[in-house]
Amino acid sequence: MSKWIYFFEEGKADMKLLLGGKGANLAEMTNLGLPVPPGFTITTEVCKLYLNNPEEIINKLMPLVKDSIKELERRMNRKFGDTEGMPLLVSVRSGAPASMPGMMDTILNVGLNDQTLLALAKKTNERFALDSYRRLLQMFGSTVMGIKTFEDILHHYKEKHNKKLDIELDSNDLKNIIELYKQEYAKYNKEFPQDVYKQLELSIRTVFNSWNNERAKEYRRLYNIPEDWGTAVNIVSMVFGNLNERSATGVAFSRNPSTGEVEFIDGKRILYGEYLINAQGEDVVAGIRTPEPIVNMLKQWPEIYDQLLKIAEKLEKHYKDMQDMEFTIEDGKLYMLQTRNGKRTPAASVKIAISFYKEGLITKEEALLRVSTEEIEKLLHPQVDPSYKEKPIAKGLNASPGAASGKVIFDSKLAAKLGEEGQKVILVRPETNPDDIHGLARAKGVLTSRGGNTSHAAVVARGMGKPAVVGAEEIKIDLENKFFKVNDVIVKEYDMITIDGTTGNVYLGEVPLIDPKPSKEFFELLELADEVAKIGVRANADTPQDAAKAYYYGAKGIGLCRTEHMFMAEDRLPVMQEMIIAETYEERKKALDKLLLMQIDDFYNIFKEMKGYPVIIRLLDPPLHEFLPKEEILNELIKDAKQRGHNSLVEKYQKMLIKSQNLREANPMLGFRGCRLGIVYPEINEMQVTAIFKAAAKAHKEGIKVFPEVMVPLVGHVNEIKFVKERLEEVAKRVLQEEGVNIDYMFGTMIEVPRAALIADKIAQYTEFFSFGTNDLTQMTFGYSRDDAEAKFIPYYLEHKILEFNPFQSLDTEGVGQLMKICLEKAKKVKNIETGICGEHGGDPKSIEFAYSIGIDYVSCSPYRVPVARLAAAQATIKLSSKKVDLVETK
Amino acid sequence: MSKWIYFFEEGKADMKLLLGGKGANLAEMTNLGLPVPPGFTITTEVCKLYLNNPEEIINKLMPLVKDSIKELERRMNRKFGDTEGMPLLVSVRSGAPASMPGMMDTILNVGLNDQTLLALAKKTNERFALDSYRRLLQMFGSTVMGIKTFEDILHHYKEKHNKKLDIELDSNDLKNIIELYKQEYAKYNKEFPQDVYKQLELSIRTVFNSWNNERAKEYRRLYNIPEDWGTAVNIVSMVFGNLNERSATGVAFSRNPSTGEVEFIDGKRILYGEYLINAQGEDVVAGIRTPEPIVNMLKQWPEIYDQLLKIAEKLEKHYKDMQDMEFTIEDGKLYMLQTRNGKRTPAASVKIAISFYKEGLITKEEALLRVSTEEIEKLLHPQVDPSYKEKPIAKGLNASPGAASGKVIFDSKLAAKLGEEGQKVILVRPETNPDDIHGLARAKGVLTSRGGNTSHAAVVARGMGKPAVVGAEEIKIDLENKFFKVNDVIVKEYDMITIDGTTGNVYLGEVPLIDPKPSKEFFELLELADEVAKIGVRANADTPQDAAKAYYYGAKGIGLCRTEHMFMAEDRLPVMQEMIIAETYEERKKALDKLLLMQIDDFYNIFKEMKGYPVIIRLLDPPLHEFLPKEEILNELIKDAKQRGHNSLVEKYQKMLIKSQNLREANPMLGFRGCRLGIVYPEINEMQVTAIFKAAAKAHKEGIKVFPEVMVPLVGHVNEIKFVKERLEEVAKRVLQEEGVNIDYMFGTMIEVPRAALIADKIAQYTEFFSFGTNDLTQMTFGYSRDDAEAKFIPYYLEHKILEFNPFQSLDTEGVGQLMKICLEKAKKVKNIETGICGEHGGDPKSIEFAYSIGIDYVSCSPYRVPVARLAAAQATIKLSSKKVDLVETK
Repeated sequence: MSKWIYFFEEGKADMKLLLGGKGANLAEMTNLGLPVPPGFTITTEVCKLYLNNPEEIINKLMPLVKDSIKELERRMNRKFGDTEGMPLLVSVRSGAPASMPGMMDTILNVGLNDQTLLALAKKTNERFALDSYRRLLQMFGSTVMGIKTFEDILHHYKEKHNKKLDIELDSNDLKNIIELYKQEYAKYNKEFPQDVYKQLELSIRTVFNSWNNERAKEYRRLYNIPEDWGTAVNIVSMVFGNLNERSATGVAFSRNPSTGEVEFIDGKRILYGEYLINAQGEDVVAGIRTPEPIVNMLKQWPEIYDQLLKIAEKLEKHYKDMQDMEFTIEDGKLYMLQTRNGKRTPAASVKIAISFYKEGLITKEEALLRVSTEEIEKLLHPQVDPSYKEKPIAKGLNASPGAASGKVIFDSKLAAKLGEEGQKVILVRPETNPDDIHGLARAKGVLTSRGGNTSHAAVVARGMGKPAVVGAEEIKIDLENKFFKVNDVIVKEYDMITIDGTTGNVYLGEVPLIDPKPSKEFFELLELADEVAKIGVRANADTPQDAAKAYYYGAKGIGLCRTEHMFMAEDRLPVMQEMIIAETYEERKKALDKLLLMQIDDFYNIFKEMKGYPVIIRLLDPPLHEFLPKEEILNELIKDAKQRGHNSLVEKYQKMLIKSQNLREANPMLGFRGCRLGIVYPEINEMQVTAIFKAAAKAHKEGIKVFPEVMVPLVGHVNEIKFVKERLEEVAKRVLQEEGVNIDYMFGTMIEVPRAALIADKIAQYTEFFSFGTNDLTQMTFGYSRDDAEAKFIPYYLEHKILEFNPFQSLDTEGVGQLMKICLEKAKKVKNIETGICGEHGGDPKSIEFAYSIGIDYVSCSPYRVPVARLAAAQATIKLSSKKVDLVETK
Repeated sequence: MSKWIYFFEEGKADMKLLLGGKGANLAEMTNLGLPVPPGFTITTEVCKLYLNNPEEIINKLMPLVKDSIKELERRMNRKFGDTEGMPLLVSVRSGAPASMPGMMDTILNVGLNDQTLLALAKKTNERFALDSYRRLLQMFGSTVMGIKTFEDILHHYKEKHNKKLDIELDSNDLKNIIELYKQEYAKYNKEFPQDVYKQLELSIRTVFNSWNNERAKEYRRLYNIPEDWGTAVNIVSMVFGNLNERSATGVAFSRNPSTGEVEFIDGKRILYGEYLINAQGEDVVAGIRTPEPIVNMLKQWPEIYDQLLKIAEKLEKHYKDMQDMEFTIEDGKLYMLQTRNGKRTPAASVKIAISFYKEGLITKEEALLRVSTEEIEKLLHPQVDPSYKEKPIAKGLNASPGAASGKVIFDSKLAAKLGEEGQKVILVRPETNPDDIHGLARAKGVLTSRGGNTSHAAVVARGMGKPAVVGAEEIKIDLENKFFKVNDVIVKEYDMITIDGTTGNVYLGEVPLIDPKPSKEFFELLELADEVAKIGVRANADTPQDAAKAYYYGAKGIGLCRTEHMFMAEDRLPVMQEMIIAETYEERKKALDKLLLMQIDDFYNIFKEMKGYPVIIRLLDPPLHEFLPKEEILNELIKDAKQRGHNSLVEKYQKMLIKSQNLREANPMLGFRGCRLGIVYPEINEMQVTAIFKAAAKAHKEGIKVFPEVMVPLVGHVNEIKFVKERLEEVAKRVLQEEGVNIDYMFGTMIEVPRAALIADKIAQYTEFFSFGTNDLTQMTFGYSRDDAEAKFIPYYLEHKILEFNPFQSLDTEGVGQLMKICLEKAKKVKNIETGICGEHGGDPKSIEFAYSIGIDYVSCSPYRVPVARLAAAQATIKLSSKKVDLVETK
């Protein structure tokens, strides 16, 4: 056990564990030569000793404290308990190694008593002194003595005397209140100690004990803060911004926290924030008087402004980030009370990171760690205009970010219909289920009154990248009468609302939204990310439009192009159905030939958009019955066609019905799909591969660079990939020969069946790339059918902490990740195969970090997640490549 | 390169690779001092050299052959090519290291020509000599010269001369035929070599070359016989059983091949088999004359019988198995031509193994390897009485063993109904699908005209342990008119048939069946198996009846008792449904209390049957909707109840319908079932655990030993088992305390979700045993829904060799097995946990061997598979524990 007490100049920033966060911060500022009020810190070690053995330790501690107070007296030229001159007052503040806002105790104005009060009144003014004493009695009484009734007494007094605000209380009032407070102490058989050292001792004890109060324990449990850290106690000389008209209190940002800009007036750099003359911090918060913007100080107290600006610049250089500073001016003298990295908007965050990097204050890596992926995500969604001031009518969970306006529609089918007509609708339901999928797909956003962050609506909306506010319980939906009610507001079907999935707010009417317009710095930051990242980012894109978006957002290829989506288009589906109900090879071939021409076009346009980046095209994956109407619908269609006497139609629908019955499966997820289809009906895959290489040849001939990668889905046995690859590579070679072109390409496989991961060494012999289909791999590794699980038991599991997170949102590194590791180890023994992730996890920063850690080459995610993934990729690389980089705690 | 030619006395049994199977066998017999006709073997090495360089090698070889023939002449006291005395004739036979029946060539009577013919005729009789010459011309002509028309010429000649049998041909006829044969040679510009050494040389060349004929290659490909082994050539002095009335040819079994008994008449041990006087082997096969049973020789030629008996006894001792011997008697002298382990019935196989063991001829381990698990299986199914001689009307694939008689029923519902009424029915369908399951369950057996060994009918029947004949394509089923036709036989609905799933035969009418009556030796063998086996055998049993059967067949516990089957019983289902549609905890509890009493009874009776062996009871596993009627049925029930104005019933069915809709799942296999149910509705599991321990206490109080093991299904996350186990163990403890008894028990988990295997170290912390649910583990590891896969693509996969076997029948050691290994390695690091297999694989010998090899403690299978599993367990232990044990090739 070394020193028990550190004066601020004896500590520094990295002594948090010993001095607590606040103590270390004050120490660091002091050592920078900033005008910090003198003070000292009792270490966390003392706290731990005290908690085990209070009396002995307090007896040893207090003489040391007394010595330190003597030193403060010397520095402040005031005396603690002085009844003549200006008395020294101190604050006693807790300060744990980790920030635990509001969890622990603070007492101000320690050192006032009936006598020093008079001295203070004499040296300052009576009302100020009385008010300070009133505050001490109240704070000390409630915190140290546990008397919680002072607020009521004060309230009661004001009511009785018809005064609304504290400031309306004059000296007489305050004297009366002090008297009432003292009587309250007596009521509890307590007494406010007139001995100022006794005040100090009890305050220190209280701070130490507060480490073990219930809310602090709960907070530590929630945030995983070790029980045995303890809290430090900071004892700081009080300075007063409310001493006179040459005093003030305020906060200042070193640059514009909305934009991140550094701005100038007449060549003078501007600080942001505000100050209030002759006021204390509390008064700023109370909002009675309007504070002045800091720039006004430039005229009012130019010397102090210059001092503050110099301090801001020094602190920015020192902390390498925009600072949010608290200061007090006492009788013309500036004191710095706190500084921290300033909160900022996402746009400002990007701007600041890039500026600091360009100003040479931080490295590329530091800049990349400064911006969070959540911030990047927010910049990509429409937002409610921050200047919009109307209050929301309700608030739910912010389940999927972005904002959208639209007409309230309660029925999914109607929502789908209106959506298709181009109307903007918000689907409003108590909760959604898979039957609502078409409505969700066509709506601008979804609002539910039930369900949590893993509810169907939340999951689907996130998947679709559209706003969702879920579990807005205040909203009472009357589906029958088509309205919802929230408090007294009634919102009818077709009324316009706006939902903000970033905040969870619901607004009446169409409120102004800000479209995502990524700044120059946004793209600069992502370029820095690409320079650093050692794991690539591609996009999942099924259409040329998606491909274009992916390219715009910086995807370096397409990691997954799902060809089945192409067959769902209105003009394709009938041909696809023709193919499915074909009874002979010839009939099937006829339909496939029609599809071939369409697919050539599809692939050609995607290659064009991707300008030579690799494009992974997955061969047909879903079970065929997904392309047929549901059996109930077919039965109706047959009935209808019969009534109309349309015989050929009757026959066609009957064929579909029979086929659909034949294709019916108990568990379609584990059924006849993927390469299983491609093996039993090789002509489907052959058509697709022909289309891919004809499209590639066409583009190539037009001078467009192309790099097709053909991906075989659902492989689980080496013979599957062997069978498929041998046949399809022949097709590819034949097409290229026929077209007379020479194009590089690869064949690869999805790793989405657990068995595939286990025998990766064998599969690798027949493939040039692997792409982890982590959605299905998660389903099979957990034995969860996602549709069923997210509706039936995952919410329960999350609520009861059976699962710590939804494994469909963030990769389960323990189980699924282990399989992936096994897979990579086995595959890499055979060859240096290209590997990627194309499940939904490809856009999740935690999952990207894991992917990088196990040596995966790229992730692939939806186009609008690409910027997030690029930053996450860089951050993962930095965090894992070099533990030396200081992981600066941003906000 | 050492010796090219080995006389029989120079070789021995273990020189198969050099001398071929036949050569080594003849050598072994010779060295045992048996009267084998003298001869020698040209080694397989020479064959290989010859195939690379024929002319050089034949030039080197023939002088050596000539020297060896000289030695034969000396031994036989005959001369090769002798035109005066009795000429030496030889056979030239191929003999590869592995048996390749019928694949390669043999030429008899080499050494006959126009001159030696006369000498032979003089020394024997003319007709015999001419017939021998005719055979040589024919065999040599077709085999060496490639002329395939001799059979036609012979046929033609007999027709023309109105003779039916070869034996009716007299010397004149034979002379004519010989002339016709020679003309046929000339027609092909060939000549039969009169030079006997030329005959020999060409015959040897032909045998060598036959190694590379197409059917031999195909055979080797099929049976994995190395291409580079080559064949040996055996040159053996001809002896003639058709020389005169003191000659004969025959086969003898050293003991009764039907029963395996050693039997005696008047104290003299009896041989089995038959012999034919003055005849050649071919005549026995032709079946013209009725051969004599071997016992007759006892009176006819007692000295030869004694000689043969002594040989039989010697061979049995030598080969340590029942022998099947071929012999020839030439003019009163016995020659042994071949001996091999005799084919036998399954019952005999068991008897022989046990007898040899008791006689001290073989070790326990050898006895256990003598009987195949297939034989054991056959002994457990009813068989068609072997003495039944009517021909089957059709033959299909023997998909599931055993025989059964019953009325032909074409409709599954009708079959189910009649079956429930106690009638014996055979379900006859073109093929079956999951809708036929109830009919299958109530039928005695199933016959299909389509599908293979992995068809739905085959798989389900095997699972249920009832006979199935599938893919009987001759059968034309007319479902509309309710009959089937096979050739000209018409079988109508309700007609009686018998199917034999062991052979694939279908019989008209009710044919006599033999019930499985396992012999004393059967149980003795299994007891030996238990002594040796280092992996235990338990049974899957859900009822006291099954438990009793399991105990009878020697199961050492129950590895899986599926409690859900108990809820399906007629009196339980309504209560279960009550529980499911309960809207409050109280309603649910009421239903559960009723179920509790029933379950106590269930478990008590099972404990009683198992007499202290461990009983693993799995908590409720299937999704709840399985206990509700299908929605179509509910709709009908509602309609019906409405019509009858039965309001409370309407309400009940409507509740069920709503519940059923709520419970509907996209992929129920991966849905809301297993411990997921038990976590969300803990009261169900609590009821079951209460029942288990109340039942155990009851039994315990009655002096019955009990050892319950509670198994939690579908665990995939450590928190699941933690959550469930902590709560349920509390219940167990409380019940035992209330009952005032102390009982050992364990809690454990199924390993059936891949993730569970991957985190086995964590799960092991909360469990005392693991049971691999290999059915589900296979489904999830492969991503196969068994119902769908076996109907849709597994047959195609097997046919096209994508899969080598159906992984639901035999464990996929490569993938699923790898996961199991990972699981065991991880778990055993934590504790020495008890492990078992309770999937269908628990009864599959190959899977049992794998289970033993990775250190699993026991397998569990259906009761009637227990004997198979016990033997398989012993065999696995022997094969893997000591590679020293000679793996005697049985049959």
